[in-house]
Amino acid sequence: MIQKLIDEIVKKDAPIVVGLDPMLNYIPEYLKKNSFEEFGETLEGVADAIWRYNRKLIDSFCDLVPAVKPQIAMYEQFGIPGLMAYTKTVAYAKEKGLIVIGDVKRGDIGSTSAAYATAHLGKISVGGNEFEPFGSDFATVNPYLGSDGVNPFVNACNEFNKGIFVLVKTSNPSSGEFQDRLIDGRPLYEHVAEKVVEWGNASMDGEYSNIGAVVGATYPEMGEKLRKLMPKTFILVPGYGAQGGKGSDLKVFFNADGLGAIVNSSRGIIAAYKQEQYAKFGDTGFAEAAREAVLAMKKDIKESIR
Amino acid sequence: MIQKLIDEIVKKDAPIVVGLDPMLNYIPEYLKKNSFEEFGETLEGVADAIWRYNRKLIDSFCDLVPAVKPQIAMYEQFGIPGLMAYTKTVAYAKEKGLIVIGDVKRGDIGSTSAAYATAHLGKISVGGNEFEPFGSDFATVNPYLGSDGVNPFVNACNEFNKGIFVLVKTSNPSSGEFQDRLIDGRPLYEHVAEKVVEWGNASMDGEYSNIGAVVGATYPEMGEKLRKLMPKTFILVPGYGAQGGKGSDLKVFFNADGLGAIVNSSRGIIAAYKQEQYAKFGDTGFAEAAREAVLAMKKDIKESIR
Repeated sequence: MIQKLIDEIVKKDAPIVVGLDPMLNYIPEYLKKNSFEEFGETLEGVADAIWRYNRKLIDSFCDLVPAVKPQIAMYEQFGIPGLMAYTKTVAYAKEKGLIVIGDVKRGDIGSTSAAYATAHLGKISVGGNEFEPFGSDFATVNPYLGSDGVNPFVNACNEFNKGIFVLVKTSNPSSGEFQDRLIDGRPLYEHVAEKVVEWGNASMDGEYSNIGAVVGATYPEMGEKLRKLMPKTFILVPGYGAQGGKGSDLKVFFNADGLGAIVNSSRGIIAAYKQEQYAKFGDTGFAEAAREAVLAMKKDIKESIR
Repeated sequence: MIQKLIDEIVKKDAPIVVGLDPMLNYIPEYLKKNSFEEFGETLEGVADAIWRYNRKLIDSFCDLVPAVKPQIAMYEQFGIPGLMAYTKTVAYAKEKGLIVIGDVKRGDIGSTSAAYATAHLGKISVGGNEFEPFGSDFATVNPYLGSDGVNPFVNACNEFNKGIFVLVKTSNPSSGEFQDRLIDGRPLYEHVAEKVVEWGNASMDGEYSNIGAVVGATYPEMGEKLRKLMPKTFILVPGYGAQGGKGSDLKVFFNADGLGAIVNSSRGIIAAYKQEQYAKFGDTGFAEAAREAVLAMKKDIKESIR
């Protein structure tokens, strides 16, 4: 699967993934109003608004980027209807030729991780029938439980041609509380990175591995070190834009081949219409504003990693 | 919320939680057959079988134990219908007077953890209406992202009178890969435990805190140390029974007041009818077998912690 992602990045000339994290206050009022009129002020109403918002966003930039990354928590908070909007979004994005990174950050003991891997990357048999529960192409995975919590995901990658990104160094301010603590003179995240390389050797796909890593744009010095420690590992880089990561910080996440990283932006794109520079689009032009923001991000990143 | 759990443990004289982790091969064939006849060999069919299985299990032991712990992954693997069976199970268990520990192991950056906390512990407003998305009483939480990934859950505990159990030392064989690594001469899980105490001070409820910890029955020496390190922290102890934890290992997880821990058993109870000693119940007697297994576990634990 990582080769497919690389092919799409090259084809669209954009190492960019758009985070589809629909906070209720990002969704334009007129869209919510329409949905509430049809479904009431209910979870079904919100789910409909999210789905319509996502669909227009996907339509607006699907020719520009290789992938989207829906953050499942933003759907889960709206219960079952929210998760139905998640599955519709995943299916629609794939229909539009996009690769879907399910940002689920799952991870548990072996048998339980196997169930999560089935849920998000695999298929499940019921009698003579087979179903794809959530059907994303990649999932994010939490490493705290060690190899037997991650290996079921690696197995699913091999069985179903999928990929994962394992949390190594996260973008949030307190990520260092545990991740930066020194073990034998090196931070925990480097030990996790070593394991990612080991897990990754079991699922190579061309020059890179299906087992990637998450490293926040907000920590470029660590990104530089991790880039060298994990040469065959693709890095998913969150934290660009709203979280504070700048284009000029990103070069270190890429290899000399110009590949090896994909940068995520969520609210900077999907809620671009709320920013002053895109205000002219108004709330009915939120999708056009998102497209403009993707083009601007593309330019920023290309200049930065040149 | 922790005080409510303690009251129920005392009332039922059972520091026991039953894990409702319905693997498809635990569910008796006749139940699956009935559901498949009604809904076909579909995810809806499986979800119906899970729901009927859980309902009978809950009916069989709801007077004996204070709590159940559904493992959401086992439902998530059956997609939306599976998660609908999860929500029905949570609601039914609560109706039957049980406390529900949603074993979701969520954890992310702050804004995302806030969405997960809303999903599993909180309520969400849509216009003038309020909804409880998944409605469990406790949730399990992964600490890898540090304080700003955990604090939104702590806030939800305070706002909605709920609780969490943070992963400290998990029960699985490879939990030591990262959790046991020494930082300033002490294992990572002790550093996490210290943070659990700190987070817990912000949500006290009687003698104990709403912020609990997960420590596996499979590591009793570490449990003993952690019990002393976190005197006001309730410990959720998985790994008893099928995973290898023995009754005699459990005493160390309890405080001198006889409280401070709740021991989970999943397949040892819910699939008891598959064990030789309960074979006489047959598959139609799976719920009675589960009740017997709860009684046996209760006896084993009472003798062990005396």
